[in-house]
Amino acid sequence: MAVEGTKASNNDLHALQSICYKRGSLQLLDQRKLPLETVYLDIQNASDGWFAIKEMVVRGAPAIADAAALSLAVEVFNLEAFQGSPEDAASFLVQKLDYLVSSRPTAVNLSDAATKLKEIIVKAASTCSDPKVVFQTYIEAAEAMLEDDVASNKAIGSYGALCFESQLNDSKKISILTHCNTGSLATAGYGTALGVIRAVHAQGILERAYCTETRPFNQGSRLTAFELVHDNIPATLIADSAAAALIKAGRVQGVIVGADRVAANGDTANKIGTYSLAVCAKHHGIPFYVAAPLTSVDLSLPSGEHIVIEERSPKELLNTRGGLGEQIAASGISVWNPAFDVTPANLITGIITEKGVITKTEKEVFDIKGFVQKVTAQ
Amino acid sequence: MAVEGTKASNNDLHALQSICYKRGSLQLLDQRKLPLETVYLDIQNASDGWFAIKEMVVRGAPAIADAAALSLAVEVFNLEAFQGSPEDAASFLVQKLDYLVSSRPTAVNLSDAATKLKEIIVKAASTCSDPKVVFQTYIEAAEAMLEDDVASNKAIGSYGALCFESQLNDSKKISILTHCNTGSLATAGYGTALGVIRAVHAQGILERAYCTETRPFNQGSRLTAFELVHDNIPATLIADSAAAALIKAGRVQGVIVGADRVAANGDTANKIGTYSLAVCAKHHGIPFYVAAPLTSVDLSLPSGEHIVIEERSPKELLNTRGGLGEQIAASGISVWNPAFDVTPANLITGIITEKGVITKTEKEVFDIKGFVQKVTAQ
Repeated sequence: MAVEGTKASNNDLHALQSICYKRGSLQLLDQRKLPLETVYLDIQNASDGWFAIKEMVVRGAPAIADAAALSLAVEVFNLEAFQGSPEDAASFLVQKLDYLVSSRPTAVNLSDAATKLKEIIVKAASTCSDPKVVFQTYIEAAEAMLEDDVASNKAIGSYGALCFESQLNDSKKISILTHCNTGSLATAGYGTALGVIRAVHAQGILERAYCTETRPFNQGSRLTAFELVHDNIPATLIADSAAAALIKAGRVQGVIVGADRVAANGDTANKIGTYSLAVCAKHHGIPFYVAAPLTSVDLSLPSGEHIVIEERSPKELLNTRGGLGEQIAASGISVWNPAFDVTPANLITGIITEKGVITKTEKEVFDIKGFVQKVTAQ
Repeated sequence: MAVEGTKASNNDLHALQSICYKRGSLQLLDQRKLPLETVYLDIQNASDGWFAIKEMVVRGAPAIADAAALSLAVEVFNLEAFQGSPEDAASFLVQKLDYLVSSRPTAVNLSDAATKLKEIIVKAASTCSDPKVVFQTYIEAAEAMLEDDVASNKAIGSYGALCFESQLNDSKKISILTHCNTGSLATAGYGTALGVIRAVHAQGILERAYCTETRPFNQGSRLTAFELVHDNIPATLIADSAAAALIKAGRVQGVIVGADRVAANGDTANKIGTYSLAVCAKHHGIPFYVAAPLTSVDLSLPSGEHIVIEERSPKELLNTRGGLGEQIAASGISVWNPAFDVTPANLITGIITEKGVITKTEKEVFDIKGFVQKVTAQ
């Protein structure tokens, strides 16, 4: 089945892409093979998408949601024939979306995206007489999601670059430290915190990016380092524990990290180790920024105390390759392996979103609710 | 050749031992095989000792010096016959000591120990007529070195336990975080910072010890965790980057680390990551102690700025097993891998030595020179 329309693409980005989409075709970078091999897998339908998510070919909350939606878009674009009413088409899509959500039931972005797409499908089915129109509407909505995510990342990058540009005094360039992976590999493309580093580099004002290993899963040494090398951004890898010495030595002038969840007061949950970086940045008086789309803000959470921290398997510390490789730690030792920590708002200089940078009020607090209301009204 | 005398032994310690010595026999725990296998190698002479040091069977500055001296003590104890004068005996020993120093030319403890032993030998040779007496004097001096080191560690442990005991308020027990390996495996036995944890445990006031992985060489997860499990001390391993979250959660009430070098003002060089722990401890108002024998104090260095930090191979971050194992990081990424960092004295609560705890004066500084003069005069 062929559906008319211009072919959407995010291939115009220079940054490394985990999601390569053109209407009717989707390739996902197999992140399980990184950093040793760069292999793209062809995704022809929702079933391929389901397995790619389940098997960690693709990771990172925004990337998973986009990959799922687009795998179904490819399937319906290539449908040879569809016998049924617009309602049947909608039902077909809804079932497939529910199936896709089951690949990673705890991923909030994925189920949120599926809910929004379902609303669009049901509405289309109720106002047309051709099932083709329902499919066409779905494909366009899935493509718009990808485009919006990339545009959102690029806007975060631009606002972030302005933050760091304003920080330049006599020096012409700035070096920035980041943690974990928040780049093209975790998002639809470009990235959040790493997107800001990309934008600072594009402005010609990046001296050097520093990335941490990000134990125990090594997202920094495996993925962020891979992206930085791929994009020819001057970059250096350090052990997580070397960050304080790096800051003390004056080798970086700012820290930028992503966010898994931002509470209404600005407290931010992010990869374990983020809090330590924030404390050290504060101790040395350098800015500490969080870069995240507004979808990461959860106004229902008054503060970080309400964020439940996932504890992960001891195997991640006891063995190499996230628990799958050889034993490296002493047998019989207990392990505490929290996936995230919470950085209190008082250690955060600003929260860089796609709608602008949230800075502190005169009372030294973040008015995130006010910011959201203002940008939503615009 | 048999030499009279009581057989020295450090086997009365309950702690794990890297050096098992009785007069005439020496076994070294092969640390290359830890934590997967516990294998002791029989060391029969200086040549065996040289290879054991060169090949990293034994590591840690004090342990290396003791192992070297004792390997030669075993050799001369078991000498079948020696033809020559006392001067010839002294010359034989001096040559062997020079050879042993060549196994690790940069190890200051080893060359210092050799220098002291040579003085003793030369003095003995000049005052006796029997070469046996020279050998006997050497053996006793080497054994005294081991005994002194263990006694020094135990004294550090006792003083450290008093520090933490005085910190108990309503709570009956305390949890302590440590970094790297400063235990039996790095010293003659018992350990410095880990010796304090052993002493706190022996007092019945240790709730739990936490140890960091200590990237990139994993001395924490491989060695400290091994010692804690061996000694049945309640212990938990964490990623280096989880330390700040651990302290914030109130799970530890103090931090204790070892020292590679302490400057005259108290600034302390220690394993990379130590500084980060000190900053986080300060931020949360919990005590941060350094445990080190007075031999680690270098009064010729006015401050930490004068300590040169060794930068180690990028391979330690790019591959597993300290650079020998499989690739884990992206190809082409630059690496900054400092072996140590310097913690300024203002972040240190106290320096626990074998002669007592150096605390700050009314002016909030350490008077280390005054402390050394006082204890030397006693």
